[in-house]
Amino acid sequence: MSTPQQDELRVAVVGAGRMGSDHVDRLAHHTLRTRVSAVVDVDVERAGTVAANAGGAEVLSSVDELLASGIADAVVLATPGFLHEEALLKIIDAGLPVLCEKPLTPDPESALRVVEAEVAAGRQLIQVGFMRRFDAGYRRLKETIDSAELGELLMLHHQHRNPEAPAEFTDEMVIHDSVVHEFDAVRYFTGEEITNVSVRIGRTTSRAGTVRDPQHVTVQTQSGLLADVEIFVNAQIGYQVHTQATFENGLVKIGEGSEFELTTAGRSGHEIDAGFVTRFRDAYDLEVQQWVDATLHGRIDGPSAWDGYATAACCAAGVAAQRNGTIEHVELAPKPSFYSSHTGSPALT
Amino acid sequence: MSTPQQDELRVAVVGAGRMGSDHVDRLAHHTLRTRVSAVVDVDVERAGTVAANAGGAEVLSSVDELLASGIADAVVLATPGFLHEEALLKIIDAGLPVLCEKPLTPDPESALRVVEAEVAAGRQLIQVGFMRRFDAGYRRLKETIDSAELGELLMLHHQHRNPEAPAEFTDEMVIHDSVVHEFDAVRYFTGEEITNVSVRIGRTTSRAGTVRDPQHVTVQTQSGLLADVEIFVNAQIGYQVHTQATFENGLVKIGEGSEFELTTAGRSGHEIDAGFVTRFRDAYDLEVQQWVDATLHGRIDGPSAWDGYATAACCAAGVAAQRNGTIEHVELAPKPSFYSSHTGSPALT
Amino acid sequence: MSTPQQDELRVAVVGAGRMGSDHVDRLAHHTLRTRVSAVVDVDVERAGTVAANAGGAEVLSSVDELLASGIADAVVLATPGFLHEEALLKIIDAGLPVLCEKPLTPDPESALRVVEAEVAAGRQLIQVGFMRRFDAGYRRLKETIDSAELGELLMLHHQHRNPEAPAEFTDEMVIHDSVVHEFDAVRYFTGEEITNVSVRIGRTTSRAGTVRDPQHVTVQTQSGLLADVEIFVNAQIGYQVHTQATFENGLVKIGEGSEFELTTAGRSGHEIDAGFVTRFRDAYDLEVQQWVDATLHGRIDGPSAWDGYATAACCAAGVAAQRNGTIEHVELAPKPSFYSSHTGSPALT
Amino acid sequence: MSTPQQDELRVAVVGAGRMGSDHVDRLAHHTLRTRVSAVVDVDVERAGTVAANAGGAEVLSSVDELLASGIADAVVLATPGFLHEEALLKIIDAGLPVLCEKPLTPDPESALRVVEAEVAAGRQLIQVGFMRRFDAGYRRLKETIDSAELGELLMLHHQHRNPEAPAEFTDEMVIHDSVVHEFDAVRYFTGEEITNVSVRIGRTTSRAGTVRDPQHVTVQTQSGLLADVEIFVNAQIGYQVHTQATFENGLVKIGEGSEFELTTAGRSGHEIDAGFVTRFRDAYDLEVQQWVDATLHGRIDGPSAWDGYATAACCAAGVAAQRNGTIEHVELAPKPSFYSSHTGSPALT
Repeated sequence: MSTPQQDELRVAVVGAGRMGSDHVDRLAHHTLRTRVSAVVDVDVERAGTVAANAGGAEVLSSVDELLASGIADAVVLATPGFLHEEALLKIIDAGLPVLCEKPLTPDPESALRVVEAEVAAGRQLIQVGFMRRFDAGYRRLKETIDSAELGELLMLHHQHRNPEAPAEFTDEMVIHDSVVHEFDAVRYFTGEEITNVSVRIGRTTSRAGTVRDPQHVTVQTQSGLLADVEIFVNAQIGYQVHTQATFENGLVKIGEGSEFELTTAGRSGHEIDAGFVTRFRDAYDLEVQQWVDATLHGRIDGPSAWDGYATAACCAAGVAAQRNGTIEHVELAPKPSFYSSHTGSPALT
Repeated sequence: MSTPQQDELRVAVVGAGRMGSDHVDRLAHHTLRTRVSAVVDVDVERAGTVAANAGGAEVLSSVDELLASGIADAVVLATPGFLHEEALLKIIDAGLPVLCEKPLTPDPESALRVVEAEVAAGRQLIQVGFMRRFDAGYRRLKETIDSAELGELLMLHHQHRNPEAPAEFTDEMVIHDSVVHEFDAVRYFTGEEITNVSVRIGRTTSRAGTVRDPQHVTVQTQSGLLADVEIFVNAQIGYQVHTQATFENGLVKIGEGSEFELTTAGRSGHEIDAGFVTRFRDAYDLEVQQWVDATLHGRIDGPSAWDGYATAACCAAGVAAQRNGTIEHVELAPKPSFYSSHTGSPALT
Repeated sequence: MSTPQQDELRVAVVGAGRMGSDHVDRLAHHTLRTRVSAVVDVDVERAGTVAANAGGAEVLSSVDELLASGIADAVVLATPGFLHEEALLKIIDAGLPVLCEKPLTPDPESALRVVEAEVAAGRQLIQVGFMRRFDAGYRRLKETIDSAELGELLMLHHQHRNPEAPAEFTDEMVIHDSVVHEFDAVRYFTGEEITNVSVRIGRTTSRAGTVRDPQHVTVQTQSGLLADVEIFVNAQIGYQVHTQATFENGLVKIGEGSEFELTTAGRSGHEIDAGFVTRFRDAYDLEVQQWVDATLHGRIDGPSAWDGYATAACCAAGVAAQRNGTIEHVELAPKPSFYSSHTGSPALT
Repeated sequence: MSTPQQDELRVAVVGAGRMGSDHVDRLAHHTLRTRVSAVVDVDVERAGTVAANAGGAEVLSSVDELLASGIADAVVLATPGFLHEEALLKIIDAGLPVLCEKPLTPDPESALRVVEAEVAAGRQLIQVGFMRRFDAGYRRLKETIDSAELGELLMLHHQHRNPEAPAEFTDEMVIHDSVVHEFDAVRYFTGEEITNVSVRIGRTTSRAGTVRDPQHVTVQTQSGLLADVEIFVNAQIGYQVHTQATFENGLVKIGEGSEFELTTAGRSGHEIDAGFVTRFRDAYDLEVQQWVDATLHGRIDGPSAWDGYATAACCAAGVAAQRNGTIEHVELAPKPSFYSSHTGSPALT
């Protein structure tokens, strides 16, 4: 084993709650070219527990302390939204790039102050955590819109369903916590700002507490495009986020049943991969990553040499069967006990 | 930026053809806790081109040279199959772990010699590149079989389609290059060896050259389970690898239309995610990886602070619309030119 | 052949245009217990052509003439909508049942006059041609709503797409000719009246002429339920009429991909028939109807005795194969030329 | 009401068991241009009960009695298969057309005697009840094969699943009662005879009694085409009859999820109707049939004049909303109690 050569990004994660600890795990164990240099939380004990999952990460109690320490090249900000403005202004002042979980801040006035601070700083430092822009289906739809391959985009229909909302969920949270993702999606797909919003509420489910649910939100963009959102946070059926885009010459659906469904004249359906490279890309990546990790621990837990031998015997029998038109028996040497503890079945991740 | 601390696996890739260069790229740029320490090929020029994509990788011309150098902790073997036996015996002798692209070797006799050498070496060193075992659908089906949640597995039906085969493809290659994956899949799903194989060939496509295509292969496992394979290497429609498993109490289909389709009494269909963590897991991972990489290059190319501000303004309008039952206009401050070159639309990978 | 005994309904079809001639064909050749006794149109030549397709139907030029003749027990009214009021008032006055193609009349004032006339007549005589209420998917959804098996209905989303509209199509026709079906569907599903309507129009397709297309219509019913309609009459993709119903405990979709798609907790998909009686009901009906009709013409054009013989030989070979584990050859007697002109493949209807 | 004019086929149904009584009901109430003139069964009481559902049908106890009576123009034969030969020979001798439920006879020797008798009679009289040839999906697939629009047919894969088989089901019945339909389907699709059959049996379900289940049947046709059948008569999931046809240039699936699924290069999916005439053909037919039947009973049970009025009011509001951009209220006159008992919701059939 060796010491790696290339540069790595030292990232401090501020906020050690659910999203923060998820990001620590992701950065430490599933992201290339980075490591977690610090976990920051006023609850230092919580920060310590999370940091323990990230090797040599230091534990700090405040953004001030972090910025004074100089141990981070960049920050992931995962505190509650009402604390974002103060932290962001300090981070901007320190000139550090920051991945800020949504929302940027809870209201447009404070958000605008952050924007103004960033503009004053003279370079972009902030990325906001609208993760849907990184989903394969959203990207394919965005690409389809931008390419104009189905003509101009005419209409968007969004459905956003959660299995159930917490008891304390409010009408305001429907907008701020859930519909906000659809606002960003409309802006992402169209490349335009939203110019107006309306909300209608009809029958509501008996399963909701104080929140009125479902609600029907309609927005319009600068060029006049209408997008509507069915938001239903107690839908029971699971988590489903679906968008249907209507174009001049066809439809695209994402997020329902399959990643990307295309409808053109006379036909609706799914795409078929062009080859094994795209079909099994994730499988190849996982195969190699798991092999590397098992090998670092002195183990082999994928398909074994025995699997290679047994399939070679099947192939030989298969070619004979092809030639002779018979049922060919596959004869194997006795299986060494050596292989018996080995499953050949890598753990599900 | 800093120098990382944790151990890394130094991997040599032997064979700089298509699969070898893919593995170099994967190891160098998409796999954690590893780096490519050497690229080995008798065609040193080709090895050099591939190594250039992997930072400090050395270029070597033979396995002997590699093993003498001591610069690799493990090997990925990606030469043509007929060269595997000799290389594997040397690598086993050197005690290095090896990820060997399929086939282990082209025939059962040589494969058994490799198995015997590994057994003699006293510990497992070889993993064979049956990458399907790492595909999400295959894993879900394996898990369903092992859990017996649908009762005992009774029957497997496989369909393997390639868009078209090279002109020189032969009947033997149908078995050795294509059906071999189904042999391994049957062994993986059942945890049993295959005991017999038969092949029937009926009408063949006019699109094939000398190969008879399609073919219908049937295998049986130790407990008597039948699995049949429709193999069609000039199917025109694309690359499609589909398995249907029949259980005592239901059916599962993988690879056709969706990752995992379940049929139980009276109903057939797809699953819905339980929450955003599973639904958007890949999106979160990609978001963070792209942010890390852009930040290492001094850039921000995901959703910007402006996106955060604009959605906050939409939310404020949304809450007002909810309360007033009106169409609320969204008023934004003038957009600083600062943000104008920024697309907020990360590149498709 | 014999003369039938049971009573038949003598129906006059008024209006010999597209819908009228379709109804004449349907009544004369595809409907039980009825016959077309008259075809009525001011264009007597057109009426004559249509009547020729209906055996002994008389040709008349006006509703007055029809009512004076006494040759109809009931009327199908298929003239343009603006002519409906006058005809309906006369038919009500004559006490005849009438199936009136939609619309009842083009505006609510005249429609109310017709309602008042029917009420004054003391019994129901008019059925309006909202044919969707007879579609299997619409009925299944109605049944699901009424049974409350998925809890209360909370929201309806309708999509109505035509491949393209005539050049002269107008905004008003979007409502009167297309959305009218969705208005009726909402009333049918909910059993409630619609209390308000709004329409929003955003980007419009370059393919439309003077009509603004698509449009987004929202209605609300007496209990507050919201239903929205995406109407797009130049959608290019074909004719697609889709409704999605959101319930407290699940979703139902009709008209898109399959007749009836159900989503409940964790799962989305299609139903499987309980047995061959439901699966092949239409096939049995068609089999017998085509056999009757062929027999009346002295022909047999379904599966022949030879088909019965050949399958019996296959079954005998199958049972032997089952017993012996061999490939059993099927030996047939020479096929009499007698059967050679016979296809066993009934014409598509 | 009147007495109809056109000729009708007088049909005798022989055998008053399940299939026989179904056919009586179908002929008497759902088939045009025919009536049931006699029901024949050795169990005269059973025949009488069934005949009561068919108006003026006479009750007879034997085929001899039937043929002597001269009251039938044609026969539907629905006795158990082992009784078919004797009855068919008599019916052929009498020169009557007969729709014979499958099987023609239970074994090839007796079936050939029937064929020979028909040939000797000099004209075709027998149609065998392979009802699948009348199913829309089967017809579409047959049409696709015959048109060669996807190139030559290369392979057929059939799946036949019953929810569960009777306890007394045997291996022989798997072939004679279930697979026989697939034998006919292969012959129908290809227009060729089957030349060999093989059967393999692997793991069997614990849910079956003495029958081995599932079984895997392979047949080959005259030109060499291979078709295989997965037959599983205790599949639990419901009744599912699926065929997949592999062509040189694409795939077609029938019977699984949708009526007809097409896969061509790069794409898999469903078709969209060209217009409302095809989309709602069944609905139109049912609308008119139910209106005729309700009218014969002096009732109206479809959409009423009130429905026509209420939708006209919605349309007027919709056009105003379109023009004004407002939420327009729909004002209706008070609903006459006259309409209140009326559901507008025709019974499901």
